[in-house]
Amino acid sequence: MGLKLYGFVPSNATFRALVSLYEKDLDVEFVKVHMAAREHKTPQFLSRNPFGQVPVLEDGDITVFESRAITQYVARAYADKGNELMINNDPKKMAIQSVWMQVESQKFDIPSHKLAIELYYNVLHRGREVDEALVAEYKPKLESVLDVYEQRLKESKYLGGDSFTLVDLHHLPNVYYLMATEVKKLFDARPHVSAWAADILSRPAWVKIVSMLRSEGYV
Amino acid sequence: MGLKLYGFVPSNATFRALVSLYEKDLDVEFVKVHMAAREHKTPQFLSRNPFGQVPVLEDGDITVFESRAITQYVARAYADKGNELMINNDPKKMAIQSVWMQVESQKFDIPSHKLAIELYYNVLHRGREVDEALVAEYKPKLESVLDVYEQRLKESKYLGGDSFTLVDLHHLPNVYYLMATEVKKLFDARPHVSAWAADILSRPAWVKIVSMLRSEGYV
Repeated sequence: MGLKLYGFVPSNATFRALVSLYEKDLDVEFVKVHMAAREHKTPQFLSRNPFGQVPVLEDGDITVFESRAITQYVARAYADKGNELMINNDPKKMAIQSVWMQVESQKFDIPSHKLAIELYYNVLHRGREVDEALVAEYKPKLESVLDVYEQRLKESKYLGGDSFTLVDLHHLPNVYYLMATEVKKLFDARPHVSAWAADILSRPAWVKIVSMLRSEGYV
Repeated sequence: MGLKLYGFVPSNATFRALVSLYEKDLDVEFVKVHMAAREHKTPQFLSRNPFGQVPVLEDGDITVFESRAITQYVARAYADKGNELMINNDPKKMAIQSVWMQVESQKFDIPSHKLAIELYYNVLHRGREVDEALVAEYKPKLESVLDVYEQRLKESKYLGGDSFTLVDLHHLPNVYYLMATEVKKLFDARPHVSAWAADILSRPAWVKIVSMLRSEGYV
């Protein structure tokens, strides 16, 4: 059967899922969903994901949507392949990993995604005018999260623990996009956050995503 | 040592964590954090949660924050106590459980929480005027999620699978508050969603939370 990922470039959720497959050295067929043609709202696509959104992973008779559910499925189902992406043996370490996984989803995701869409996609890529009100709303929110990250990364090499895990991986697409914008200054001003960002962005699995972006004319 | 939960009434995140402890029949010391006195922003509290928010669970030398990380910790660490709250044996069922756990967090939480804060807390409890623009923004968002839930609950008794799990539990506080507001109509119009809501709200662990709300003058 093989693995099939339905996605869209440069959707950050698509890349969040895809980079987890690359970290696991898995062969995956990437199926581009034609958003402009509203292919994601067809009955066939809605049978894969009733919300009509990408990404969706098909693995034999298992269908998974929501990017963070896909990464967790991949990390568990292919635990013995490629790089380990989850701590699964120590209850205390697992609790810490859960905490920071929730922090990404509940605290980092919204401000970083809003700023990435606006400053990377709308402004840099599509050449639109900056929505200054949006930037003024979300930059301070992102800064307060990065302040907590700076403290956290003084104690721990990665956000979820001593090794790279899904916690860090979930940040990748938004961190990558933001580093091409004025928001990079917020990272530069925090040495531990900045070193962490450089580290996770240099991983071979992410570099493979950047090649894909380049071939699609995004970089 | 014993379990200690730092929280605030009627914080929906506090109740999300607390109801998981009640489902597990665990004795827990509930420590009220005095938000008005900004106790959650003291150095002592920030050492428990650097974001200065409730709830926080202390279990011996383990400290967990973010409500959904607390519930997952409780479900795993006390797997053999009280009611089972997570599917942990079948990879396909676990994948489905992960998907719907993400749906609650990424799709249901924001519209339901915004409407609950506005219509339950601000309007019903504090007697403020309704912010009609906010209601007009989030009601259609909630409706489109409930439409998907109605289809899902036709196939599956609970959102995460055949049995009650954390997926359903995570919805409890917001569902409870919304049922006291005009948003109840959106539930009533969808028979499977409505039956599911009645079912999860009647669980003894949640009834215990309602007693606490009543004793604090909220019901």
